Amino acid sequence: MSIHITTTWKGNMKFESTNPSGHNLFIDAGPENDGLGEGYRPKALMLSALAGCSGLDVASLIKKMKLKVDDFKIEIDANLTEEHPKIYDKVTMEFHFFGTELNEDKLQRAVDLSVEKYCGVMEMFRQFANLKVEAHFHEK
Amino acid sequence: MSIHITTTWKGNMKFESTNPSGHNLFIDAGPENDGLGEGYRPKALMLSALAGCSGLDVASLIKKMKLKVDDFKIEIDANLTEEHPKIYDKVTMEFHFFGTELNEDKLQRAVDLSVEKYCGVMEMFRQFANLKVEAHFHEK
Repeated sequence: MSIHITTTWKGNMKFESTNPSGHNLFIDAGPENDGLGEGYRPKALMLSALAGCSGLDVASLIKKMKLKVDDFKIEIDANLTEEHPKIYDKVTMEFHFFGTELNEDKLQRAVDLSVEKYCGVMEMFRQFANLKVEAHFHEK
Repeated sequence: MSIHITTTWKGNMKFESTNPSGHNLFIDAGPENDGLGEGYRPKALMLSALAGCSGLDVASLIKKMKLKVDDFKIEIDANLTEEHPKIYDKVTMEFHFFGTELNEDKLQRAVDLSVEKYCGVMEMFRQFANLKVEAHFHEK
């Protein structure tokens, strides 16, 4: 399957990029890099792609497995190397589940299925970064 | 340097993700995957990250080299593999420059500097995909 996006320069350091959802997004540098901060920093979008891809897997499995979860969030910490080209070499991804009746085994299974089988973005990250994924459970 | 983002589940298939710019973004699946289409598709955000990272390099070099460019855009075509986990295995990135006085040599040099030296996202893509980058010049 082929995916196509178009990214158009809007002058100075600003860009507008398409997305298959139909929603466009703006990218911009911050003032420290001569931009006006009127858009997302592109490198961090990689991390949102990772969280979103795996998060959608887990959200889908929560539904399929009929699991009870009040809230969940994903915290990502990524280390950027010092020299150009700067890449993410170490990435930690923490799932945090909140609820009164958390089925920890099944939630862990959902995370494992995303990590081991479904999440393509994670598979791409593994080609350049040391990736650690953890699940934490917060019973209310 | 460490980069941190938080991605929070908003129910069903929707997520809200932070970005160092201070602008949050929404991620959602489309109706075909049980979502409401109220956000970006995460996998395509990887391509916007690639275009944005390299585009910012080139925009910065256009400024430094005092080059005259009316418009430019970046077209990305990415092939997704068929089996889970689905990754981008072939990526084509085309820079299109438009203007009346395009200095093709220097613009090509700006693209080459991003490709060979500066663009960290491109370096990450090279670890999992066959990447082809082209520059096209459209004199008005």
